[in-house]
Amino acid sequence: MKKIIGAALLLATAALAINVAAAAGKTMADVLAASKPSDWRTLDPENTLYMELAGGRVVIELAPEFAPQHVANVRTLVRNKYFDGLTIVRSQDNFVVQWGDPADADHKKPLGEAKKRVPAEFDRDSAGLKFTALRDPDTFAPQTGFVSGFPAARDAEGTAWLVHCYSMLGAGRDNDVDSGPGTEMYVVSGHAPRQLDRNVALFGRVVYGMELLAVMPRGTAAMGFYDKPEQRVPIREMRVASDVPAEQRTKLEVLRTDTQTFTDLIEARRNRQDEWYKHKANRIDVCNVPLPVRTAAN
Amino acid sequence: MKKIIGAALLLATAALAINVAAAAGKTMADVLAASKPSDWRTLDPENTLYMELAGGRVVIELAPEFAPQHVANVRTLVRNKYFDGLTIVRSQDNFVVQWGDPADADHKKPLGEAKKRVPAEFDRDSAGLKFTALRDPDTFAPQTGFVSGFPAARDAEGTAWLVHCYSMLGAGRDNDVDSGPGTEMYVVSGHAPRQLDRNVALFGRVVYGMELLAVMPRGTAAMGFYDKPEQRVPIREMRVASDVPAEQRTKLEVLRTDTQTFTDLIEARRNRQDEWYKHKANRIDVCNVPLPVRTAAN
Repeated sequence: MKKIIGAALLLATAALAINVAAAAGKTMADVLAASKPSDWRTLDPENTLYMELAGGRVVIELAPEFAPQHVANVRTLVRNKYFDGLTIVRSQDNFVVQWGDPADADHKKPLGEAKKRVPAEFDRDSAGLKFTALRDPDTFAPQTGFVSGFPAARDAEGTAWLVHCYSMLGAGRDNDVDSGPGTEMYVVSGHAPRQLDRNVALFGRVVYGMELLAVMPRGTAAMGFYDKPEQRVPIREMRVASDVPAEQRTKLEVLRTDTQTFTDLIEARRNRQDEWYKHKANRIDVCNVPLPVRTAAN
Repeated sequence: MKKIIGAALLLATAALAINVAAAAGKTMADVLAASKPSDWRTLDPENTLYMELAGGRVVIELAPEFAPQHVANVRTLVRNKYFDGLTIVRSQDNFVVQWGDPADADHKKPLGEAKKRVPAEFDRDSAGLKFTALRDPDTFAPQTGFVSGFPAARDAEGTAWLVHCYSMLGAGRDNDVDSGPGTEMYVVSGHAPRQLDRNVALFGRVVYGMELLAVMPRGTAAMGFYDKPEQRVPIREMRVASDVPAEQRTKLEVLRTDTQTFTDLIEARRNRQDEWYKHKANRIDVCNVPLPVRTAAN
């Protein structure tokens, strides 16, 4: 038996009822139970990062389709062990958790051969992307949906971009658009701050261990930065999964978002079939669609 | 000087920049700096709850305009010291934190004169409500906005309801619509689960101390419930603020949502004026509008 993991999947059960009602129709659990092995994919180890914290491992899937230069630069930084011994520097309630080098400008860790500036990769041409569209209206974008497992949006002018849902990973920057080379990373830990869409390079998503970041104590300085060095949680190391011995990798499978199974899952979530729901939303927000993850069979 | 507090207000500063840019126009900080004393209101102590945890005090504002019977029943439960010594029972990542009586059905704490069943108060007649409307489209409701400091929605048929934004407080229930008398309370701790709108009585909002609940370790049983009794964080006590000596109350003021200042704040947030923003959203989601809280002058 494959063990279902990940916070997203826990949402499969009825929301706030203590006694979960028998399903009257097709629930997400039904959809997943009927899924085929080909509906799932393993993570490409070259596009997977592990961040090791005292509390455990955070697994990140990178998004080279949207931010190839950021992904390449972050891989270089990680392979240089740039993040090893750096810290979580910021946890702002209902917003983001961020990590990087807390030293002042004169004492920053050297970047080695990694670039200090990476061109803005805030959106891209939508041509060539397999876009699974939601039919529901969105406050911010003409159309939302999913590309290769990531929440995304597109417009009629041929532009597509990743969107700031919970657990999405971005490259913090200063005012210059090319000033976020991946040295400061943030993960969305609150309600989707969609005003950031197209303002930052989103380049990945936490697919496992998000709860380790989400519970970081909130920093009490402005914007949730930690006041004191001892408040900063250390990063033991970050690694590209392909550099980690195979037996030490976290074996995960994620549901493909270009499948009928995923489309069925969206429908099951648009109209909850649990008896608990009295008023069916008949709608869904791109950031409310679960992106199922499970441990892979050996 | 009044000290500005609360996670929402921290959002006033530029989002992910380390060097905050000089404002090019009217920012939220500008709007608040120009606010008049009459733009703010104190909390009615009869509609304010304090939850005392080891980590500090959580302050809740109740919403009798929307759920008068739930509010009355919860006040009775609190005055009976029903919650004192009970625990946080559930923390589900990106969803809710919930508290109540973890005992099985045969060993529940008696409710005293509080009611076991309270009629569904999932929505109400929109007539008579001061509704500050957003002009932005919403995925779930025909129109969203704010009523008396709470995020809300309404339709053309004359119905209004509170919506499930971060920090909103609801009465967990079983399948029967009247089975949530306030004995199990939950607070939204993740991306707005708007599918719950009109399915549960929302009856308040955490206005202070939300970060104490947000960082609760996630439970590892189904739906984020805690597996083991020792994982449950105890509630020292809950009190109605009017029952607490005046000098022990938390003196807070919240920005009135029926003011020009609040309308200006919404506009400042729809179009960020910080130099950091390159792509202005020109939109806002009801759950992204900050609801400012500050310590009151003595």
